[in-house]
Amino acid sequence: MKFAVVGLGYWGPNLVRNFQAHPQITSVIACDEREQRLEFARSRFPGISTCNSIDALIQDPDLKAVAIATPVNTHYDLAKKILEAGKHVWVEKPFTASSNHARHLIEIAKQNNRVIFVDHTFLYTGAVRKIKEVLDKGELGDVLYFDSVRINLGLFQHDVNVMWDLAPHDLSIMSYLVGKKPYAVSANGIANFNGMENVAHLSVYFEGNCFAHFHVNWTSPVKIRRMIMGGTKKMMVFDDMENFDKVKIYDTGVAINTEEGVHQALVEYRTGDMYSPKVNQTEALSLATSEFVNAIIEGRKPLTDGDNGLYVIRILEAAEESIKNKGQLVLLS
Amino acid sequence: MKFAVVGLGYWGPNLVRNFQAHPQITSVIACDEREQRLEFARSRFPGISTCNSIDALIQDPDLKAVAIATPVNTHYDLAKKILEAGKHVWVEKPFTASSNHARHLIEIAKQNNRVIFVDHTFLYTGAVRKIKEVLDKGELGDVLYFDSVRINLGLFQHDVNVMWDLAPHDLSIMSYLVGKKPYAVSANGIANFNGMENVAHLSVYFEGNCFAHFHVNWTSPVKIRRMIMGGTKKMMVFDDMENFDKVKIYDTGVAINTEEGVHQALVEYRTGDMYSPKVNQTEALSLATSEFVNAIIEGRKPLTDGDNGLYVIRILEAAEESIKNKGQLVLLS
Amino acid sequence: MKFAVVGLGYWGPNLVRNFQAHPQITSVIACDEREQRLEFARSRFPGISTCNSIDALIQDPDLKAVAIATPVNTHYDLAKKILEAGKHVWVEKPFTASSNHARHLIEIAKQNNRVIFVDHTFLYTGAVRKIKEVLDKGELGDVLYFDSVRINLGLFQHDVNVMWDLAPHDLSIMSYLVGKKPYAVSANGIANFNGMENVAHLSVYFEGNCFAHFHVNWTSPVKIRRMIMGGTKKMMVFDDMENFDKVKIYDTGVAINTEEGVHQALVEYRTGDMYSPKVNQTEALSLATSEFVNAIIEGRKPLTDGDNGLYVIRILEAAEESIKNKGQLVLLS
Amino acid sequence: MKFAVVGLGYWGPNLVRNFQAHPQITSVIACDEREQRLEFARSRFPGISTCNSIDALIQDPDLKAVAIATPVNTHYDLAKKILEAGKHVWVEKPFTASSNHARHLIEIAKQNNRVIFVDHTFLYTGAVRKIKEVLDKGELGDVLYFDSVRINLGLFQHDVNVMWDLAPHDLSIMSYLVGKKPYAVSANGIANFNGMENVAHLSVYFEGNCFAHFHVNWTSPVKIRRMIMGGTKKMMVFDDMENFDKVKIYDTGVAINTEEGVHQALVEYRTGDMYSPKVNQTEALSLATSEFVNAIIEGRKPLTDGDNGLYVIRILEAAEESIKNKGQLVLLS
Repeated sequence: MKFAVVGLGYWGPNLVRNFQAHPQITSVIACDEREQRLEFARSRFPGISTCNSIDALIQDPDLKAVAIATPVNTHYDLAKKILEAGKHVWVEKPFTASSNHARHLIEIAKQNNRVIFVDHTFLYTGAVRKIKEVLDKGELGDVLYFDSVRINLGLFQHDVNVMWDLAPHDLSIMSYLVGKKPYAVSANGIANFNGMENVAHLSVYFEGNCFAHFHVNWTSPVKIRRMIMGGTKKMMVFDDMENFDKVKIYDTGVAINTEEGVHQALVEYRTGDMYSPKVNQTEALSLATSEFVNAIIEGRKPLTDGDNGLYVIRILEAAEESIKNKGQLVLLS
Repeated sequence: MKFAVVGLGYWGPNLVRNFQAHPQITSVIACDEREQRLEFARSRFPGISTCNSIDALIQDPDLKAVAIATPVNTHYDLAKKILEAGKHVWVEKPFTASSNHARHLIEIAKQNNRVIFVDHTFLYTGAVRKIKEVLDKGELGDVLYFDSVRINLGLFQHDVNVMWDLAPHDLSIMSYLVGKKPYAVSANGIANFNGMENVAHLSVYFEGNCFAHFHVNWTSPVKIRRMIMGGTKKMMVFDDMENFDKVKIYDTGVAINTEEGVHQALVEYRTGDMYSPKVNQTEALSLATSEFVNAIIEGRKPLTDGDNGLYVIRILEAAEESIKNKGQLVLLS
Repeated sequence: MKFAVVGLGYWGPNLVRNFQAHPQITSVIACDEREQRLEFARSRFPGISTCNSIDALIQDPDLKAVAIATPVNTHYDLAKKILEAGKHVWVEKPFTASSNHARHLIEIAKQNNRVIFVDHTFLYTGAVRKIKEVLDKGELGDVLYFDSVRINLGLFQHDVNVMWDLAPHDLSIMSYLVGKKPYAVSANGIANFNGMENVAHLSVYFEGNCFAHFHVNWTSPVKIRRMIMGGTKKMMVFDDMENFDKVKIYDTGVAINTEEGVHQALVEYRTGDMYSPKVNQTEALSLATSEFVNAIIEGRKPLTDGDNGLYVIRILEAAEESIKNKGQLVLLS
Repeated sequence: MKFAVVGLGYWGPNLVRNFQAHPQITSVIACDEREQRLEFARSRFPGISTCNSIDALIQDPDLKAVAIATPVNTHYDLAKKILEAGKHVWVEKPFTASSNHARHLIEIAKQNNRVIFVDHTFLYTGAVRKIKEVLDKGELGDVLYFDSVRINLGLFQHDVNVMWDLAPHDLSIMSYLVGKKPYAVSANGIANFNGMENVAHLSVYFEGNCFAHFHVNWTSPVKIRRMIMGGTKKMMVFDDMENFDKVKIYDTGVAINTEEGVHQALVEYRTGDMYSPKVNQTEALSLATSEFVNAIIEGRKPLTDGDNGLYVIRILEAAEESIKNKGQLVLLS
């Protein structure tokens, strides 16, 4: 199978490397308008072909799939062209700049019977897959809350705020782990510098008395990457800055004793052992590539399909509206 | 000077101990309706007097001041009686259950020329005083944002939610460190158990493009006590769970380069050394006691006076309204 | 039962407090030559009796037991007097200043049928008892090595070096956890200041190819309290500076595959889950007190008896000789 | 300049990559007896030449320098051939298997006027260079002790024990930072598996009352990389497992107050601020390559020359003798 990667900025070369390493991808084409990036790709990846125009690229009848690693505002147009040319498409996160765009792409893919893969890479990490496994066994019980922090001193994007840049990682993880339906969003934050929010707090309300919160910040002196999930049976902490023991499961619980009637209801605590399961170290992008390839071969939707991409975009879009109105609740369309 | 402590629950005995240790407080009376708590006080604090009624207590013409360490819904009535009896009053946090109550007490104290001391103990810790010192020297520049996390597995209160229980600490620290005027609040959270929120996120908007956020949680498997302040010059992290090096000042900055005009505005990063100033280890409650005693002697307001207590209550009250409406912005009255 | 505590310095008052709290100890006498320390004891511990001479003390026929919390060079004389007067004796660590002294005391106690309790408090902590439990279940397999670090900026003792001051804690823990016979010691270190070693490294060789090492330092800028045990099946880390999760059991192993014959012998690695068992929070000194009281009542040896004290002193004595000879191996007598 | 790398195992490819990236190295030859490793090199490093024999290699008159990244027992023969062929030589650590070998190579290089570079990479890290800078400014005062821990679950080497494998890193850092002359060594440890020590403790005695200790372990469940240096003025901690703030300087001191005469000498403590200097992030191997190239061009010795390599080997050799005799002091020849 012949694959192409469009956009050779920061992330594109990682896609080229993983595509080249996959046994079922026989050749890879790198595409960028900047000749200097093509030169870099040729020296870095022996055996690669290059081209400087998407239009030429998609006329290649042997080309099976194209990955888009360009700025988010170009995703829709590029993905549309690729799908309409009958190729499968891999889109970097965030999927699109609007939920309408996301819906159109899903529709086009359906009509053309093609696969959309949204690169929510974190869902392919050993840590997140292990947490999913623990959850599916019912160890945590019912999810009560989901809390995520992703802050550090990061590069400002000029086209999007910190929510669009960092929160897609965490929202996609939430979509995978919290099996409940979100219905509304409230967001707060501040734009201290160039009109783009550099600090944001995003609250998500779920049906069934569940709640999630996301804290993202481009201007923090310290780097924190931590998620906490509270369940009715146990609780989980995922600290991605730990070199070892990233995932910890606490035999900690809070339970309401309702025997005595509502007014005497007693909240009971329990703390017990903690354990940290071993986590698979395979590179997430390698597993993501396999999932894309297999979805194409098997004619099925991948784990991170267009609907999963849309889920994240709907929340970001609502959060954008809410943050402009300082926390006003926005229902998810 | 003769002082009394009303309420010998969890915190009251700490007040008794510190009052007894102060050189200018010559005798201490412990007051509680529960005979068993009075017995405990007599055995634990040799030389103490006890009584079981506030009414008898305040008729003592030698009594100079009374500390209230009872549940928050009793603060107003007790403090009113004490002030009207011409005694100075120390009130545990949170000051009162409503801002109207707080305003009435401030008025009564003014009419009777008596001191109100609100026990925002954290303002007397070595760590917070050191941060204040650093800020006053202008090291951080203008404050951009203030972020606080206080989460752990804590005991549910039956009368208040997690915001009223935990956030007063952090709001009082914010009032001390951020020299700007808050004007609105948005709060989100969830009540997973008994109708009282066990997780809450509170955003505060300030005049002058500054923002603060508070995360409190009674049902977290891990204990975190951390504040981050971003400034135009440097940034600060206060981690109260560290045994050493609790306060760290980062020579880290984000600056907007506006020379090129708004559209080409460039965000510039800088990271440099970090330092951790030595922090005084004196028990905060001992310094708080001295501040109360000195305010009485000098006929002045203490650092944590009624207005400081009111500042915190106004925000909590607005946050309570906001959290019931899922993040709706509530202007501070 | 009537108990006494001799020596009201840093540690003695903790003994008084725990003895007073024990249900079977009906009265406690505090003994010190310094009137000011007796005054302190009377004000701090209502109901206590005091005296200023050990000789008067031990003539009291009702007195059951005496705890010695004085400098180590006085332990032998005091304990001898107490045992010969027919009282049971509790001795602070280190037991004695020499192994001969330790042996004499054990002999005297035997002749008088009295209990010697050496206060190796750590053996009564929840963490060490939990590790013992894990070991006894065979989870770690055979112990390969034991490694202990106890360093911080500590007060110099004027009469002993850092080994005699800090290592007794760790040596007593080793004696409890490593069920093998030590036969030789090698020690290295440096005396940077007053002729007393402030840094020391102590190696212990055991029969059965097992090894232990102890690092103690009074002049470290950071505080570390950590033990690591490697076993043939699993490994254990005990970090006493952690607020939570002090004990961690790693499903990590190294095994030699001997099937292929010695020359092709393959070392195989295994890493798996980690777990951290819940640890009992009861104050160690309270459990130590109970063990002493019960040993007296039941006429049996306590867990930390004279032999356990002697075990530690023999190693310290050999280490002292070795460190003066820069690591020379000293066989245990 | 034309360079070659002999040995394409774990480390060799890193040398190839850095040599290729250096502006003054125009071509790189990779040499290995295993055709499969040469193939790997050709696909990974476009433009590289390969050869499978050192003898053919050194006959190339244009070849300027050769790097040896083969097992330690081959270093002497290979380096000898290379130097005698008039090429400069880069040798991976440890320099040689014996101090005699090291001395011969130094002599041969001198006679042929060629450069020996020993790859003590750590001396080119930003962290170690920053510590050196701090030391050279006299901030720490006189060095009292140096303590190093390098433990983890590592691969057993079949030809050397854990000391020869891991301690060269730390011994080379010590040689760079502690400006005193070591005169004797005492080492202890255990070989739990295949006759090679997997745990070792190495003590080094210096002239001028200074002491160093090295703890290395291949069979630890946790990974620790930490150095502590105590000085008469300040103290330093270098924690290489920290993602940020790897180097910390503590304004902590211990001083002997000798005014009162030796017998009343008082040890005084001081703790103050801590600071963590910003550390340069340039890859150490890139700076090492530049140092090698510059030493060749300028006809001078590099920072990590043969003498620096010999320093480390002399200590390892003495430690080997000592550990076989369980801590016996071995004077450095």
